[in-house]
Amino acid sequence: MSAAFSVTAPGGIPEVAPGDDLVELLVPVLARLDLPGPDGGAPGPTALADGDVVVVTSKVVSKAEGRVVAAADREQAITDETVRVVATREHAGGVTRIVENRLGLVMAAAGVDASNTPEGTVLLLPVDPDASARALRAGLRERLGVCVGVVVTDTAGRPWRHGQTDLAIGAAGITVLEDLRGGTDSHGRPLEVTMTAVADEIAAAAELVKGKVAGRPVAVVRGLGHLVTDDDGPGACALVRRGADDMFALGSAEAYAQGWKAAAAARG
Amino acid sequence: MSAAFSVTAPGGIPEVAPGDDLVELLVPVLARLDLPGPDGGAPGPTALADGDVVVVTSKVVSKAEGRVVAAADREQAITDETVRVVATREHAGGVTRIVENRLGLVMAAAGVDASNTPEGTVLLLPVDPDASARALRAGLRERLGVCVGVVVTDTAGRPWRHGQTDLAIGAAGITVLEDLRGGTDSHGRPLEVTMTAVADEIAAAAELVKGKVAGRPVAVVRGLGHLVTDDDGPGACALVRRGADDMFALGSAEAYAQGWKAAAAARG
Repeated sequence: MSAAFSVTAPGGIPEVAPGDDLVELLVPVLARLDLPGPDGGAPGPTALADGDVVVVTSKVVSKAEGRVVAAADREQAITDETVRVVATREHAGGVTRIVENRLGLVMAAAGVDASNTPEGTVLLLPVDPDASARALRAGLRERLGVCVGVVVTDTAGRPWRHGQTDLAIGAAGITVLEDLRGGTDSHGRPLEVTMTAVADEIAAAAELVKGKVAGRPVAVVRGLGHLVTDDDGPGACALVRRGADDMFALGSAEAYAQGWKAAAAARG
Repeated sequence: MSAAFSVTAPGGIPEVAPGDDLVELLVPVLARLDLPGPDGGAPGPTALADGDVVVVTSKVVSKAEGRVVAAADREQAITDETVRVVATREHAGGVTRIVENRLGLVMAAAGVDASNTPEGTVLLLPVDPDASARALRAGLRERLGVCVGVVVTDTAGRPWRHGQTDLAIGAAGITVLEDLRGGTDSHGRPLEVTMTAVADEIAAAAELVKGKVAGRPVAVVRGLGHLVTDDDGPGACALVRRGADDMFALGSAEAYAQGWKAAAAARG
């Protein structure tokens, strides 16, 4: 038996402005989707359906929610969003701060973003991306009568790897962590892999068609209905591993410096 | 304009044993794929085509290449695969070693895996997953006359996030990093996101249907032909950010201890 899903990023979504109702903007587009045919051809329109997952770039959520700040206040905005500095690195243009932000996400510049924002402004992440996902889910259920999952995404770098990937910073109505604990392999032994971050994998998949430039901030994933849940669920905050629980809570240089300082203080 | 792709993990791939020819095993399956129709229905069989990406779990590559070691030698195997210990954590069952392995990958247990392996054995990663990807690509070209991309995947944990995701440890004929440097946003300003790790995103997408249990170690991605390249390209090793270039080259506790020791040594 095959297992399969498709990911489609519809065009035709207008620029989002503060105060816009994201549900109203998306309904006409999601009610008439061109999902791919078996050979990549367009088999004609279909509507958003039960079990689909709607993946939305956090940028458009932030815009609709009016999370816009003057670019001159960017450094202060980063400071305001920061709970804890994880690492800093100086470069020609200044200092990059990798921080844990108030959502528990570890990101460069706390996730404050200056791309694809109106001139002279920067965007903050949504106040509560899980709440944003729940609201969008409820709105789509009300307007289109469908039970879908919603994932709100952002882009971040990773330790040990070049390049950035998208991850889930908000979620509703979808399993975010697939728990395989207690499962066995085809030889009957316990699985070493125990929890799969499926919401992050969905975010990554959607990035491949949403892209950064082309005005396609939304993707619809069809075929993963087994991950869509009746209730809203814990949200993407369940994917966050916070400071003390993490082996990489501090950059290596920062941890080294702390150790040095502590030893010096102990000697008096 | 929509952008779309599909991901299909065909069933019917037999258990792989040391010495098996992976190309010969996969050809009958890939020559007759059931790719999803617009509403998730099966629209009838189609064959692997130019521009498809074949995503293969490293486990079956390792098995075919005979990278099997007696379970009793597991700890020694991890040591042998290790270039540098990044962090260690004690737990009830022993010590987990997070290490940089000879491929530059930072993974628990160096990527040595005891799930879905024959009783009494553990699996090492392929000797050179990029070479494995190139060989599979060449074999599929020869047997099926198609120009496809190949990604070899493994599963790993991440700092700061719960759950594991799949990433690309081998690749051939596919862009692994999409370079957006010099690009501009819809307002004409430089993009902050500069490099997207598309091969890792493809690996993550494929995990959603390959799964860990169900005997579907291969997925075919259709619709991302713009990422498939004529030449084999640099491979997934281009995604590896090595030690000194990384801000998280050491676990926080390990870096702290080094700093403490260094300060103590400096005082004499």
